[in-house]
This record gives sequence, C-alpha cells and structure tokens, in this order.
Amino acid sequence: MSFADAVNEPAAAPSQRTRVRRVAQRAHYDAATLHAILDEAYVCHVAFSDEHGVHCIPTACWREDDHLYIHGSNGSRMLRLAAEGAQVCVIVTHLDGLVLARSAFNHSMNYRSAVIYGVFETVEEAHKAAVLDTFMEHIAPGRRHEVRAGNRKELAATTVMRIALAESVTKIRTGGPKDDEEDMDRAVWAGVLPLTLAPLPPVADSATPQRDAPAYVAAWANRAQGDETAG
Amino acid sequence: MSFADAVNEPAAAPSQRTRVRRVAQRAHYDAATLHAILDEAYVCHVAFSDEHGVHCIPTACWREDDHLYIHGSNGSRMLRLAAEGAQVCVIVTHLDGLVLARSAFNHSMNYRSAVIYGVFETVEEAHKAAVLDTFMEHIAPGRRHEVRAGNRKELAATTVMRIALAESVTKIRTGGPKDDEEDMDRAVWAGVLPLTLAPLPPVADSATPQRDAPAYVAAWANRAQGDETAG
Repeated sequence: MSFADAVNEPAAAPSQRTRVRRVAQRAHYDAATLHAILDEAYVCHVAFSDEHGVHCIPTACWREDDHLYIHGSNGSRMLRLAAEGAQVCVIVTHLDGLVLARSAFNHSMNYRSAVIYGVFETVEEAHKAAVLDTFMEHIAPGRRHEVRAGNRKELAATTVMRIALAESVTKIRTGGPKDDEEDMDRAVWAGVLPLTLAPLPPVADSATPQRDAPAYVAAWANRAQGDETAG
Repeated sequence: MSFADAVNEPAAAPSQRTRVRRVAQRAHYDAATLHAILDEAYVCHVAFSDEHGVHCIPTACWREDDHLYIHGSNGSRMLRLAAEGAQVCVIVTHLDGLVLARSAFNHSMNYRSAVIYGVFETVEEAHKAAVLDTFMEHIAPGRRHEVRAGNRKELAATTVMRIALAESVTKIRTGGPKDDEEDMDRAVWAGVLPLTLAPLPPVADSATPQRDAPAYVAAWANRAQGDETAG
C-alpha cells in the first residue's frame, strides 16, 4: 500500500459503519464524489430487514441537494417499512471494467459505489408533485411539460421518500492492474476491459402514430449511435 | 392487470419471502430465467445484517450449476459473517431501459433482477482453485492458462463461498409503456430509451510492452467497436 493509503482513511468517516476497512485507500467521504456517483444512477438498491430476514430491492432514485429520493406504490412493503422508521442501507454501484492482471490473484474490477445508511422520511403531500417533477427532469429534461401530469388519485397512491446523505461513503477503484514485481515480465496481456451503462437507440411505442422525438430522445439516439466514436 | 397476472403468481414461489406481491405478473421462478440473469452479471449485491444494522456490498459473482459463488479476502467482514451462517439476500439487477409513458404516473423502467435468499457455505480448500478457475473462464475464457496461477499463500488468503439457488425469484419488466386509454392520443413521444452494460475498447497496461491481445480481448474490442451497428 502506498503512503496515500495511510493518510486517506479514518479521519473523515462520518460513523463507524461507514469507515471502510478493506482497501481503505479507495474510500472517499466528500460530497462532490458522492453526488457524482448518485447523479449518474437511475437505480439504487435498498437493503432492509423485517421479521423474515434481510431484503434488498432495486428501485429508481434521484438526488436533490443533500437527499436521495425514491418513490413507489403505497402498497410497497419496502416503503411501508421505511415509513415505520426501518434502518436501511442504500447502495449505488457503477461497474466500470474488468481488471486483468498478470497473476490470477491480482485480478480486480473497476467500480464506483456509494453507500448511505440511515432512515427514510416521507415527503409531505404538498411537496410530492414538485419532487416527482425533479425526478422527471433527471430522466428526461423538459418532459414534465409534455406528459399528462399526475392527478390527485395517482399522487395519493404514490409514496415519495428521501434519505439524508449525512452517513455515507463512496468507494472507487480506477486504473490498471497492480501486479507483483515478479510477475511483470510474464508474457500475458494485462490491462482493463472497460464497461459502461450505455444507451441503445430509442424504441418508439407503436401503439399510436410516431410523434416527433423531443430533444432528450434525439440526444439519447445520438449518444447511442455515437458509441462508435469511442472505438 | 391482465388475466396472466392472476395465473402466474403464487404457485411456484419457493418460499414466502420469494413470493412477489407487487406487480406479480413480472415474477418468474424457473431455473432457465434465473441462470440467464445470473450468467450475464459480473457483480451481485449481498445484503446482510450485524449488530450495527443492515449492510449491502457489491461483489464479483459467478454461477456454476445450482450455486452462485463469491470470493474475497479472509479479512472481509461480509465473508466472515457469511461463514458464521448469516442469513443473506443476494441480488443481481440489469437495468434495460427507461420507459417513457404518456402520463407521468405510468413511467417505468425495464429491468431483469434475481434475488436469492439463504446462507452461504464455504468452499473447501481442496476445491478452491478449480472454482476460481471457473470464475476466470467466465470473465476471460482461456486466460487461466496464461496468468500466473494462485500460489499457496494467495489461495490461503482467499475465501470462496457459494449459495444455493433454491430460494430465489426473478422479476422482469420488458416492452413499451402501459398507458391509460384516455392518454393514448396525447401528442407526446412514448417509448423506451434502452440501456445496456456495454464494453468499451480494451486499455492495455502501459507498465510493460504491449502483448498480443488474446481472443477474449480481441472479442471485447470487436464488441466495443461494433456498438455502432446497433445504431
């Protein structure tokens, strides 16, 4: 481990359960790193426990200021438990690549993950519509002005919750393999096979005549077709 | 909900905690669906609890027959708890797209997820090397013959565990938006913005002169550059 490992670790961890013990030099506790990881995510995993054991459920998420938001049906077991004050662990993970080292043991993966501990709070009825608008803006900027807005019945059926980002930690691995000195001359390809969550071309719904693609759909198509430039 | 919802649900769930309650027509309990979702994954999330609460950790995974395998350092807190018989919930999620409906309320996401409940068992010392070879084959076919194999010390420092797939469930959403009849004529683009975990071009490690790319690296590069054909 480098000198950086020794100085980077325990100082900033906001709690015992966010203090990274394994490969601690990969841990970060600053808001900018946390926000960047969360803002790139469409989905988080929420872990919680009830009388049947531990559960983990993927759900859409979005960040606004110092909170991460989720939403769902009032009937959701997870949201009901969260509303009762269940302690949760929320995680966002981006897998960035497979790291191929010169020895089997030193193989690794590049990733960015964010973990948030705490308790969700329910967003009040009066703020629900505005918070869901923020979600729509995150997914598809401008679309909230085009779709039919949620009516009273739909909003009433939806629970929106948020968790503070206060007790959180991010963990990041980047770069190539870290091999042992004695393996460096081995005649084997070493490096990274990168991965990214990439857009594919939009698929218009065929149930009605095709509408003009708004900017966020056109941008998606361009990103999807632009993948070739990365090669 | 369609008629299919009513017939597809509770019959096949292997336990109470794998019975999907919300949008139950998306649940599947067959091995082929489960295996396909697991075999496409490089990473799972393992949720477990200890005296500090619930935790959820991403880790590399691979399937062999009716078990999902993970591995890590002997020092890993998660693996130590797992070895002590902790009940876990393991989840693999593939996000396949954003589903843009004609109303805000009917927006959704396409995904495939697999959840496994149970307890990990430790893979015996005698089988460890062979099981890790299977992992390497999953990541990069043939590479295990090229790299330096794990030595006794490295294998001794590594814990390999597996969990039976017996108590598991998959949940899948595919296809376009499901809109309300009264929204169908609305002048808004509706459809799916697909997503996929895609390869980017390989990055050879610069620490030593570049070696010839083996078949799995060349195939990765071709997949990465071939993304353009999807457009």
